[in-house]
Amino acid sequence: MPHPHVIALHGGAGVHPARDYSEVEAHLAVLVRECDALLANGASAIDVVERAVEAMEASGLYVAGRGSAPNDRGEVESDAAIMDGARMRAGGVCAAVGLVHPISAARAVLEHTPHVLIAGAGARRLAEEQGLALVQDSAAHYRLPVGVEAEELLQLDSGLAHGTVGAVALDRQGRLAAATSTGGLFGKRAGRVGDTPLTGIGNWADGDIAVSCTGIGEAFIYAGGARDIVARVAYGGASLDDACEAMLATVARLHGDGGVIAIDCSGAVTLKFNSPGMKRAVAGANYQPFVAII
Amino acid sequence: MPHPHVIALHGGAGVHPARDYSEVEAHLAVLVRECDALLANGASAIDVVERAVEAMEASGLYVAGRGSAPNDRGEVESDAAIMDGARMRAGGVCAAVGLVHPISAARAVLEHTPHVLIAGAGARRLAEEQGLALVQDSAAHYRLPVGVEAEELLQLDSGLAHGTVGAVALDRQGRLAAATSTGGLFGKRAGRVGDTPLTGIGNWADGDIAVSCTGIGEAFIYAGGARDIVARVAYGGASLDDACEAMLATVARLHGDGGVIAIDCSGAVTLKFNSPGMKRAVAGANYQPFVAII
Repeated sequence: MPHPHVIALHGGAGVHPARDYSEVEAHLAVLVRECDALLANGASAIDVVERAVEAMEASGLYVAGRGSAPNDRGEVESDAAIMDGARMRAGGVCAAVGLVHPISAARAVLEHTPHVLIAGAGARRLAEEQGLALVQDSAAHYRLPVGVEAEELLQLDSGLAHGTVGAVALDRQGRLAAATSTGGLFGKRAGRVGDTPLTGIGNWADGDIAVSCTGIGEAFIYAGGARDIVARVAYGGASLDDACEAMLATVARLHGDGGVIAIDCSGAVTLKFNSPGMKRAVAGANYQPFVAII
Repeated sequence: MPHPHVIALHGGAGVHPARDYSEVEAHLAVLVRECDALLANGASAIDVVERAVEAMEASGLYVAGRGSAPNDRGEVESDAAIMDGARMRAGGVCAAVGLVHPISAARAVLEHTPHVLIAGAGARRLAEEQGLALVQDSAAHYRLPVGVEAEELLQLDSGLAHGTVGAVALDRQGRLAAATSTGGLFGKRAGRVGDTPLTGIGNWADGDIAVSCTGIGEAFIYAGGARDIVARVAYGGASLDDACEAMLATVARLHGDGGVIAIDCSGAVTLKFNSPGMKRAVAGANYQPFVAII
């Protein structure tokens, strides 16, 4: 008897009240159905979460991949992580420049190195070795207005500051996986690394739970992120819902906000956020396709 | 009534049976007494752990600072993190080149940025801005034999592969702090980041516990490291001793090894390792100075 497959996506916590998200809603609605169909046809959770995050990176609709934000040097740096819960193997890249698909570079770390996290030029070198696509022309590739100062952007649309994307999935064989990718904060200090690429904080999957976080990365690091949720369940006997809420309550106490999507091995989905909205979608054997922003 | 101050140091898990560690023992014996005296005189835990790690970095006796190991491109990259439990503030640097004191750059991230972790060139830029010492001449600065291939070094002295240094302290005001620094693995892939600079994994301090880890970084990331210890105590009701042993048992199940030093807010010290030895030292109000290697 196959497991009840399920996919959950987020396109980042934080929604700007004045902005029109219909394009994002439409994109998530198509993407979540595509991932649902892949899983229904037997695709592995790790392949589907990578595919989902690749699609969000390629769209330019989220602050990841093409939609990434320049740092205080005008350069786009990407962070991403992916984890295969069935194999208990993860890969991540941080402060990486020039990657079309940061999540695929993270997957290359998982598949082709003994490491968990590779930073900067080393991540780009691995991507080149593996034949992954590199950005040839930054001005053409990234969707953000060129020549606008970072501070202006912050004033224009602070909701975009929460732009991480993520996916968690359970496949028909009962395997869990998680993937998370971000193009950072507008005008962040060059080299700043948040929770996203940190396996166990922004992203995690094991045999029981898969988690992807989004929000103010520093607060998630202090709150413990994904592994704090896992620990509240494993050591404290909390439900997955309560564990996610408790971790987000710590984030709030630390003056941060954000959200989390999580799946357990029974296929139950938790979507929690204490930010103003979180772009999100779910579909699966027991879930009619669902998309929401607020 | 002041708290019973205490300092614990590690100079890395893993000891090579054929190597003479008398210089390391002598260094730790002097350093732990110096830190004990600073704490007895009212110095803050955060200042003392930074000072302790600076001294270990400067000595060239450990695989951190001057004793760092070159990566597969022949370049030394440093990772470090520091956390002030009283303020719940941390800073870290990863894959940073040219820092004389990576731990001081981590302290600069803590004190002078809103971030927790800064990678690569961004970390070096912050160090320059803050007037921290930069390596002017790599060949003269680093103590490792120049011109020896990384693979030869691995064969010569695989025990050195565990070379992280760390310190945890409780000061007379009851404040906890932790600091950890590493110069990586011989011949590691450029950009590889282990657990050391990751706040909550290789290094952590809050109001209750301070932890510094050393060992196979990837296994510590999968096992959860410092925050897994905190969670076993906070959610599972484990003693600090049992929590450290349980986390290291997970590291061992993941085919890793290493060690951990931890202090709680009562001043109790835990030193645990499942590697062949861990260079370590303790001193404090209730601890006669103690140094051990095996």
